[in-house]
Amino acid sequence: MTQFDKRNISMMMDLYELTMANSYYLTEDREKRVAFDVFYRKNPDDGGFAIFAGLEQVVEYITNIHFEKEDIEYLRSLNSFDEGFLNYLAEFHFSGDVYAFQEGTIMYPGEPIVTVVAPLIDAQIVETEILAQVNHQSLIATKARRIVRAALDRPVSDFGARRAHNNDAAIYGARACYIGGVNGTATVSAGQYFNIPVGGTMAHSYVMYYNDELQSFRQFAKLYPDNCILLIDTYDVLDSGLPNAIKVFQEMKEQGIKSKSYGIRIDSGDLAYLTKKTRERLDNAGFTDAKIVVSNSLDEYTITSILDQGAKIDSFGVGERMITSKSEPVFGAVYKMCAVANDGVMEPRIKVSETVEKITNPGLKEVYRVFDEHGHAVADIIAKKGETLDMSDSYRYVDPEKPWKTRVFEKCQAKPLQTLVVKDGEAVGESKSLPEIRDFVKAQLDNEIWAEEQRFENPHIHYLDMTPKYYEMKMQMLYENRH
Amino acid sequence: MTQFDKRNISMMMDLYELTMANSYYLTEDREKRVAFDVFYRKNPDDGGFAIFAGLEQVVEYITNIHFEKEDIEYLRSLNSFDEGFLNYLAEFHFSGDVYAFQEGTIMYPGEPIVTVVAPLIDAQIVETEILAQVNHQSLIATKARRIVRAALDRPVSDFGARRAHNNDAAIYGARACYIGGVNGTATVSAGQYFNIPVGGTMAHSYVMYYNDELQSFRQFAKLYPDNCILLIDTYDVLDSGLPNAIKVFQEMKEQGIKSKSYGIRIDSGDLAYLTKKTRERLDNAGFTDAKIVVSNSLDEYTITSILDQGAKIDSFGVGERMITSKSEPVFGAVYKMCAVANDGVMEPRIKVSETVEKITNPGLKEVYRVFDEHGHAVADIIAKKGETLDMSDSYRYVDPEKPWKTRVFEKCQAKPLQTLVVKDGEAVGESKSLPEIRDFVKAQLDNEIWAEEQRFENPHIHYLDMTPKYYEMKMQMLYENRH
Repeated sequence: MTQFDKRNISMMMDLYELTMANSYYLTEDREKRVAFDVFYRKNPDDGGFAIFAGLEQVVEYITNIHFEKEDIEYLRSLNSFDEGFLNYLAEFHFSGDVYAFQEGTIMYPGEPIVTVVAPLIDAQIVETEILAQVNHQSLIATKARRIVRAALDRPVSDFGARRAHNNDAAIYGARACYIGGVNGTATVSAGQYFNIPVGGTMAHSYVMYYNDELQSFRQFAKLYPDNCILLIDTYDVLDSGLPNAIKVFQEMKEQGIKSKSYGIRIDSGDLAYLTKKTRERLDNAGFTDAKIVVSNSLDEYTITSILDQGAKIDSFGVGERMITSKSEPVFGAVYKMCAVANDGVMEPRIKVSETVEKITNPGLKEVYRVFDEHGHAVADIIAKKGETLDMSDSYRYVDPEKPWKTRVFEKCQAKPLQTLVVKDGEAVGESKSLPEIRDFVKAQLDNEIWAEEQRFENPHIHYLDMTPKYYEMKMQMLYENRH
Repeated sequence: MTQFDKRNISMMMDLYELTMANSYYLTEDREKRVAFDVFYRKNPDDGGFAIFAGLEQVVEYITNIHFEKEDIEYLRSLNSFDEGFLNYLAEFHFSGDVYAFQEGTIMYPGEPIVTVVAPLIDAQIVETEILAQVNHQSLIATKARRIVRAALDRPVSDFGARRAHNNDAAIYGARACYIGGVNGTATVSAGQYFNIPVGGTMAHSYVMYYNDELQSFRQFAKLYPDNCILLIDTYDVLDSGLPNAIKVFQEMKEQGIKSKSYGIRIDSGDLAYLTKKTRERLDNAGFTDAKIVVSNSLDEYTITSILDQGAKIDSFGVGERMITSKSEPVFGAVYKMCAVANDGVMEPRIKVSETVEKITNPGLKEVYRVFDEHGHAVADIIAKKGETLDMSDSYRYVDPEKPWKTRVFEKCQAKPLQTLVVKDGEAVGESKSLPEIRDFVKAQLDNEIWAEEQRFENPHIHYLDMTPKYYEMKMQMLYENRH
């Protein structure tokens, strides 16, 4: 198997999914309908929210999962599976329903982002890939948004492919960065597959090849006058790179070349100091519209710091710290059973645990975002599936952290967050384009989500409340499951 | 483009590789031979070494890189490339040479792990993918080795797929974990593609489905008597999970079932306390050979800590912190030009920088590992390509950090670390199997690499020395490039 071969990502799952499925097959339980929720427990980087990303790939996976001849042969070679089960897998396609938040939704810990309602085997074996997609893309989209926010309206580009955790991490990571608000990527496949704007400048090797910085800059300017960003730190920024760049800009001017975009990139050293000096000298030479691009181990913290120091920067190329979410490279979404059919009725299930945060929210549920009269999202609330929330008058709800306090929504509206995206194994509903998803993220953050939830330091915690009925159901289940 | 489609990873590159290549094409410089070194600057987690992994995929990539019709069409749509260059790309295959360390070699900062000697365009455009593979797999192999070391001879399994940075990160990450010394993986594709042993237990959902822990354990034991690891923390480890597991083990005994492997897994709570209690009760019930498996956010630090507390553990399932190398998720290998042909002679190139660690080692070079008379690796040394190192007598060398000190190797032997792996675009030399690579890692660490370099706290720094000739060449170049 090489990286160039066609792969069947249906096999990208933990073995135990199949071990359990084999067991369910043999006990004739496989037709029983169950429900699983995807949720996460903690926002990355102690942030106030996360961005839901990866849904397009989840739907693509669920509607295409299948096992080919060589997959079945491999599984047979493990000597763990019943032959009837292997024949069943050979014919398998996913036949259940999937509900999910719209891709790009601002989300919070504890919420059912994705809910799978399907026959037992179907629901079990899709766990690993759903989590891998949601975890990876939500992680990177959330990180990218932090970096974009720190850049204060300056464009940010993804330069991370070489430090990504292999090909998919570069490609789907670029997709997630774009959802999070970056303006483009350097990764060609990501541009090709997802129509993300691609861009880039030059490498040090270009300057080193010519062994003459001025010659290399002239050559580049001649070929790419309209995207002429010269990398000026191969030898010395202020004593060599910048004077050579200014000379080339002057030559372009003398030749009457009007560039759409020109300037310099700095990839090392003290970016605050160097960009201030560089700006000053570019301006003095009359190149006030020359752009200053910086890169080199940037993230929301370093960007905030150098901008606070008065750095003069027009745009950022961000690599390893965005594409790996270096400061917090794990997004911990989990996939937990919440209901099992019994005579056609979905009975709730709960997982208690030694670790209190690992107690799950049982049952089929609906989660709503609650908006005040100004359109601000004041809280999210979990209800029992099918329960009606009448907010035309004041509405009493339960804060599960302080259930003894009386809590009321006044003049609010509740909007359900999940929609049906897969019905009986087929994709349904309109899928959003990538630019639409990106715009949706921005619109929510600009108009609906409190600024206090978006700041980096001690952000406000978004409430995840419960309807009185839902809360009572959970308490009753905890009581019944006591030991 | 879906995840199921055949992809051409040749397009997984930064756009600037092609921007520069287009420039080289137009200036007729494309046939000029150049050399690039891959090296890294810092061991992850402040460790004493790293493990070189990913070479098989690098060779696979280099010998297969090509551009298909739709790739050329996409590139044409960017309006940045000369039509002659696009035609050139359509026929492109890599025609140069690649030298590399054997996969699995213990490596140190500053060493040329991979050296590409090729025509200018060939050498430039392979940068991104080489780095992505080497960075990802070396990172994970190095992390896995730390975790295996902390586990003190207990088996470790990779359970990380769901938290990996997408599919490739799970699959090639599992490969890298195996190179680093783990015993197996839960990721089915990784088993299928690379013949890595796969394993797994059961999920909480299995217990929750039955809603009766004892029944779920019985069912599992009936189907999988020879790999009967029961997950005992769905409700309560000591009051529910463990008594139910013991009951099932007793039933198996009464029925005369001899299990090859049975026991329990704990995935939450205080693992030190719970495993001690569990061991005691299993032993008291006569199940002294029942295995205790633990999982839940483990890494080398938590494993060391719980073992120090006397935890009773037979094997570890390690997920997110290994598959993402959470504590340090970036391996910073770079690809830097070191020489350019001039009238058939490779002239050295150097990159100076505002940041002192970013100064490169110029020229074509050979790196040797120096072994003392007991076979221990005392240092590595960089020589000029073609320079002979005669260690039959005492050998004077330069420590570039303290060049004024007289340094001598006595009774040592020097072994070159790079071999030719691609010649004129074709793979050459014997490629090692994955178990051979894994054994090679272990053999080096057991027999050649000082224990002092392998400890976690303040490991000894491995010396990377220079021959007097190489050192003098570098100093002369720095002098010539001064500003």
